[in-house]
Amino acid sequence: MVTRPFNFNPGPSTLPLVALERAQKELLDFEGSGMSILEHSHRGKQYEKVHDQAIALIAELLAVPATHQILFMQGGASAQFGLVPMNLRTDSHAGDYVITDTWGQKAYKEAKTVGKPQVAWDQNKDGVWTRVPKQAELKLSPDAPYLHYTTNNTIMGTQCFDVPNAGSVPVIADMSSDIMWRPTDVSKFGMIYAGAQKNMGPSGITVVIIRKDLIEKGRTDLPSIFRYAEIAKNNSLQNTITTFSVYLVRNVLEWVKEQGGLPEMERRNTKKAALLYGAIDGSNGFYTCPAETASRSVMNVVYRLPSEELDGKFVAEANKAGLLGLKGHRQVGGIRASIYNAMSLEGVEKLIEFMTKFQKSS
Amino acid sequence: MVTRPFNFNPGPSTLPLVALERAQKELLDFEGSGMSILEHSHRGKQYEKVHDQAIALIAELLAVPATHQILFMQGGASAQFGLVPMNLRTDSHAGDYVITDTWGQKAYKEAKTVGKPQVAWDQNKDGVWTRVPKQAELKLSPDAPYLHYTTNNTIMGTQCFDVPNAGSVPVIADMSSDIMWRPTDVSKFGMIYAGAQKNMGPSGITVVIIRKDLIEKGRTDLPSIFRYAEIAKNNSLQNTITTFSVYLVRNVLEWVKEQGGLPEMERRNTKKAALLYGAIDGSNGFYTCPAETASRSVMNVVYRLPSEELDGKFVAEANKAGLLGLKGHRQVGGIRASIYNAMSLEGVEKLIEFMTKFQKSS
Repeated sequence: MVTRPFNFNPGPSTLPLVALERAQKELLDFEGSGMSILEHSHRGKQYEKVHDQAIALIAELLAVPATHQILFMQGGASAQFGLVPMNLRTDSHAGDYVITDTWGQKAYKEAKTVGKPQVAWDQNKDGVWTRVPKQAELKLSPDAPYLHYTTNNTIMGTQCFDVPNAGSVPVIADMSSDIMWRPTDVSKFGMIYAGAQKNMGPSGITVVIIRKDLIEKGRTDLPSIFRYAEIAKNNSLQNTITTFSVYLVRNVLEWVKEQGGLPEMERRNTKKAALLYGAIDGSNGFYTCPAETASRSVMNVVYRLPSEELDGKFVAEANKAGLLGLKGHRQVGGIRASIYNAMSLEGVEKLIEFMTKFQKSS
Repeated sequence: MVTRPFNFNPGPSTLPLVALERAQKELLDFEGSGMSILEHSHRGKQYEKVHDQAIALIAELLAVPATHQILFMQGGASAQFGLVPMNLRTDSHAGDYVITDTWGQKAYKEAKTVGKPQVAWDQNKDGVWTRVPKQAELKLSPDAPYLHYTTNNTIMGTQCFDVPNAGSVPVIADMSSDIMWRPTDVSKFGMIYAGAQKNMGPSGITVVIIRKDLIEKGRTDLPSIFRYAEIAKNNSLQNTITTFSVYLVRNVLEWVKEQGGLPEMERRNTKKAALLYGAIDGSNGFYTCPAETASRSVMNVVYRLPSEELDGKFVAEANKAGLLGLKGHRQVGGIRASIYNAMSLEGVEKLIEFMTKFQKSS
């Protein structure tokens, strides 16, 4: 077997090895059934147990209050870009949108296909955003059905550390790339959604945590399969779910819990990011971050070298050294190191070691 | 390891053992990368190869003509119940619907949430359908944007063996439970869709085969993530796909091809169904089918015993004998043996053996 590389992919991303090993071990025989979890019915007791465990782990790790319900859906965060306004817009307003990256921009554009969203903030300059806004900069509509924002921006490498205050307007957060990076006060949100494939598991499942009164308020002029109310009523089993993705989310979250839960994730993530940004800032300008310091993401460290040529050389040589997935998004170029929960401190240390060596030899 | 049972689940259902064994073997190290396929980027060359292989296998096995494009989507057939009318309805008509089961009924109901569908045929009596219609019975609207029907009915155990002729109106088929059971003339269809979790793989991916002119004709007043045109333009990689489900579909379809492709699947499926229906018909009325003979499904053999009590006893004792998933859908009760492509002849023979013994001892 080949040595396991350090995988800095932005998502699907590296998974805790123990979660994968467990999946491998029981792939042909799930809990003595003689069948794979992939072959179990989504309505059978074996899968149901896994389903309930995954929900219970999310509830426990994030201390989800009784005011909210946890749903599993399909289609990724991109489907939610459409489903949020389809379910929750009013006839005159499809939400205030804070646009901090391409993802928030896409969410806004999708809302425009079905209603009338408004822009609460957008720093966009030729497809580049370098920071997240301050509360005072937000242009909020009092009649908005919700305020939508992206907590972490994988392309630009920025992150919102404060939850916007929108008064009585519910805040909806796309947390796809930073959910569970640290403890979160879920009660501040009307809805949180996140594709699983960064901090929680593989692709194919979206976690939605939604306040029950918003479920009730949802529109009815859309197919029932897309209604939060329908999903909530059926405990996310209204139709066949991506059972294996939920199973792996369960495995990953058990690992998170065993490691010490979200306080421990925060400790590790803060340390990893501090080390990596420290190396960048200590490079005498060889490595630079486009993002403003106060907005720097703890999950996706985006930086660049003095030239595009060096960027390319860096990525190629890093690959050879077993450090994968470091190429920046085509929109900004440069380097991107995604250091989600499952990326070890060792991986970040190896990357820094490589960066130092690369700088010296350049 | 426990003996592998014969799994008659209606879906997710039994998978070819070789497809699972391959997944298990390479779960921690995909093709020498040292990483799981679950950790590879959906935009990386390793996954891309799998993606293209899966599409090529579908194209080859079904001889998909150049007029059609193969898409992968999320959300199962249920999502398509909504997406078909969202994309393809006209303002005055959301399609003619042939209703042969709860699934067709659901598709019709979802179309009603967004437009004005019409019923082309519906035999429903208290939630029971016993047959599929003949061509002459269909009430077709010349101005319909499409005619929708369900080729195989998992709850009632009926199947449509002929493709309805709707003239110039495109025929759209939900083939979730019988796609690839035999060779199919794809050119007769405007669109075919199917959740993978019966004949093609695990849950989490939907195969859509759609005529290119229908892609072009699609509406634009819906989120782009739900537009067939957007999916088609991006080769189904507009956002993060359920990579592992596509990977397993690839494994399963390679098995289908190695076995001799769809002609061989048809030979086996026809034989399995003939044996099982033969046993039912030869039981002197102990086992009976609610479905009319000409409409009997080759995929889901639905039958019952003289009493509900015996139905229950049959299922319980079959379970003990390693024959799983035989309980009928709650809507019709009785027994249901789902004998998709991956169910072996041996499994059906064991079931028949058990049925004979059970009848004698009752």
